[in-house]
Amino acid sequence: MKYADDSFMLHTDLYQINMVQTYWKDAVHQRKAVFELYFRKLPFGNGYAIFAGLKKVMEFINNFGFSQSDIEYLREEGNYPEEFLHYLQNLKFTGTIRGMREGELVFANEPILRIEAPLAEAQLIETPLLNIVNFQTLIATKASRIKEVTGEDVVMEFGTRRAHEFDAAIWGTRAAYIGGFSATSNVRAGKLFGIPVSGTHAHAMIQTYRDEYTAFKKYAAAHKDCVFLVDTYDTLRSGVPNAIKVAKELGDQINFIGIRLDSGDLAYFSKVARKMLDDAGFKETKIMASNDLDEYTIMHLKSQGAKIDAWGIGTKLITAYDQAALGGVYKLVSIENENGEMVDTIKISANPEKVTTPGRKRVYRIVNNENGHAEGDYIALDEENIQQTERLKMFHPVHTYITKFVTNFTAIELHESIVENGKVVFEEPTIQETQAYAKKNLKLLWCEYKRTMNPEEYPVDLSQACWDHKRAIIHDIKEKISKKMDTR
Amino acid sequence: MKYADDSFMLHTDLYQINMVQTYWKDAVHQRKAVFELYFRKLPFGNGYAIFAGLKKVMEFINNFGFSQSDIEYLREEGNYPEEFLHYLQNLKFTGTIRGMREGELVFANEPILRIEAPLAEAQLIETPLLNIVNFQTLIATKASRIKEVTGEDVVMEFGTRRAHEFDAAIWGTRAAYIGGFSATSNVRAGKLFGIPVSGTHAHAMIQTYRDEYTAFKKYAAAHKDCVFLVDTYDTLRSGVPNAIKVAKELGDQINFIGIRLDSGDLAYFSKVARKMLDDAGFKETKIMASNDLDEYTIMHLKSQGAKIDAWGIGTKLITAYDQAALGGVYKLVSIENENGEMVDTIKISANPEKVTTPGRKRVYRIVNNENGHAEGDYIALDEENIQQTERLKMFHPVHTYITKFVTNFTAIELHESIVENGKVVFEEPTIQETQAYAKKNLKLLWCEYKRTMNPEEYPVDLSQACWDHKRAIIHDIKEKISKKMDTR
Repeated sequence: MKYADDSFMLHTDLYQINMVQTYWKDAVHQRKAVFELYFRKLPFGNGYAIFAGLKKVMEFINNFGFSQSDIEYLREEGNYPEEFLHYLQNLKFTGTIRGMREGELVFANEPILRIEAPLAEAQLIETPLLNIVNFQTLIATKASRIKEVTGEDVVMEFGTRRAHEFDAAIWGTRAAYIGGFSATSNVRAGKLFGIPVSGTHAHAMIQTYRDEYTAFKKYAAAHKDCVFLVDTYDTLRSGVPNAIKVAKELGDQINFIGIRLDSGDLAYFSKVARKMLDDAGFKETKIMASNDLDEYTIMHLKSQGAKIDAWGIGTKLITAYDQAALGGVYKLVSIENENGEMVDTIKISANPEKVTTPGRKRVYRIVNNENGHAEGDYIALDEENIQQTERLKMFHPVHTYITKFVTNFTAIELHESIVENGKVVFEEPTIQETQAYAKKNLKLLWCEYKRTMNPEEYPVDLSQACWDHKRAIIHDIKEKISKKMDTR
Repeated sequence: MKYADDSFMLHTDLYQINMVQTYWKDAVHQRKAVFELYFRKLPFGNGYAIFAGLKKVMEFINNFGFSQSDIEYLREEGNYPEEFLHYLQNLKFTGTIRGMREGELVFANEPILRIEAPLAEAQLIETPLLNIVNFQTLIATKASRIKEVTGEDVVMEFGTRRAHEFDAAIWGTRAAYIGGFSATSNVRAGKLFGIPVSGTHAHAMIQTYRDEYTAFKKYAAAHKDCVFLVDTYDTLRSGVPNAIKVAKELGDQINFIGIRLDSGDLAYFSKVARKMLDDAGFKETKIMASNDLDEYTIMHLKSQGAKIDAWGIGTKLITAYDQAALGGVYKLVSIENENGEMVDTIKISANPEKVTTPGRKRVYRIVNNENGHAEGDYIALDEENIQQTERLKMFHPVHTYITKFVTNFTAIELHESIVENGKVVFEEPTIQETQAYAKKNLKLLWCEYKRTMNPEEYPVDLSQACWDHKRAIIHDIKEKISKKMDTR
């Protein structure tokens, strides 16, 4: 590389810098802005998503700031005035971020993060924040779907080789752990994040020793805990018999923990292998399966009576194969005007789902005190005090005729303080605590919201004040456009 | 993080380290091994793939070696003997890698990289190499498909916010450039790789100034080259008229390069907007479109007569949305035995496409001297001298009755020397040279191999010697398994 270092400050879209330049030139770059980060549609047709990404968001904020070589690059390749580059070079993040903690259940159209900062600063963090949250939330959600199907089985993330480059492998496997996975194969993720790491051997080891008997013996000579991969040449005629033979010969010298199937008819092979193991007296030895598995294939295998105790999940999880992107967005909802007043803003679109909801907002989870289940989420304007409301009217955000009243509830505010005036204040829990938090949250949901196919839609409602505010702003803008068109 | 540094050496699956421990304990870790990296199926139903990833592979090899904290982690979390950790700590890469250069056309089942190294070293680089090559080759190929449809139009990569974390954004956009894209929105990718960077402003800028007229004016005050985003409130009644109004008022003070459509009916909007621009005298002003585009939507838009000159491609490219993984594998094809002789190896599988082809091999592209087109690729054993062959018999690798003879050809060997005895020797071309190389290679292919739907299958044949060798080894192993089963 031509430049001395690689900072993440330029990990953004060029238009952000060009907008900041516009604001700077117009001297509005310091105006207070409020942005919200949210997605418009749950992924995989799932009934909920699990938020992940906050750890890296905090790392990014902690490292906010252009490096010397970033400025050099912009000077050489951009057409920016020197004064503007000087401004960028001294820029610090001074904003405030409130948002959800990792492992939180999150639904469409509710703000996950709320960023209040000088316009320029808020704009410069948009792209990296979306890049982080979109991917990690997608994978945590996919992992949780798989856990819905596997129940108490052990499920491991094995997808590094198919992940979208290095970062996706490690942050993806961390997200999978938050979503309920037990372990990863990626050693670096273990080192960086404290996730348990798992793995034994590959086909290449069998090929190296040419036959399974020798290979398993050699492995056992170096490792007390043994899981033998049995499908290199012929699973039932060679792999499983050799594993049993070696385990019998070595007896207590090893823990014959399991065998792994990585190809072929997993339902059939697992049933026959189970019988072979049982007949040989290895009733405690587990059968582990891998090979392009996801929640669909696992459900089918279970329905066929496959005797599989543990699952290694690669490609389909780490790439979110059936829906490889979460469409999170970052939208301006309020901006200071020339008189120092905050003015709420909207984006109207020919695609109705792209219309934004103006104003600084909070998100509450409405939990029924009688049964402990969540009745829905409630989005209110910042200044509303819903804690003193005794009877909450909730209505469907699109089909507004569908309403319900909730009494005897607890309204849990989902946003916590993450960054205050540029300083990260949120104390990061351990990854195990975050996993436990997600698991606990899922218990709030009726099972109808959690099934992997056609789940019931969880209510996410706007408060009456929030809804009236939005309609009034839409009306104003439409009026203005019509008038302008008439006078042009 | 608990540890002092983050090296990439642990960016591998745990089983690699456990296998290496087995080999080390058995004192076979230094035996010479040959692995090949290839994929079994072209992605997206495409007729070819474009190799990308070599730059990062070379970076990885240059940085091969466990850090102090890597060893600490393995000591604390693994159950490894101290002597083994000592061995790892001093490990250097001493192997040799031959392979294709970036931008090379590559097909199923032909070795992209051939790694010859002591067994332990070769095993430790498997996972990161696959992680790199699978993703980058996937994106270069997807980008090339989009270029097939857009022809000479400008196509830009805009997907950072939907990419799978940071690395995917920058290495993916680099791969897209190799595949024929003109620019990226990611400034960091511009800095790191020398790719042209492109971008203007977002909806937030319109919202900030509340109306488009003011916003466009402010942008124009800071930037001479203007592309105005016109779909924030109402594309045809507000966005486009305001863009034209500002451009007329400012005249020569700006270059009114284009407008951008990011939502709504792109076919209809672009046609009406084109007419509005033309009628206003802005015939040179371009129309740029974005919004979940890929080769399919672009082809449809073109067939509807959309007046779009430039394309911004996000999600569908950077996540390879319709097929989010390339299934590249890394297989042992030859290993030194106890007598110092190389023995070729195979993996047989219940899934027939997973059977490997034994032996060190080379790949040749057979180019017809008369018409300059490629007749197919030819995989031969290392020791075969096909340059002295005058009449080449090529046959289909699965349907072996399909044969053809080629005379008057040039056999271009596709593997170059990348790493020799641990030292990277391949001189990296500029990214522009790599893009040009890919473009030149595509000219070798008849257009029947390049269409985006149902392309003709490009022949990739094994030499007779290679095929006979494979059959003999399969036969031997099958014999051995049958005999063992009989005597058990």
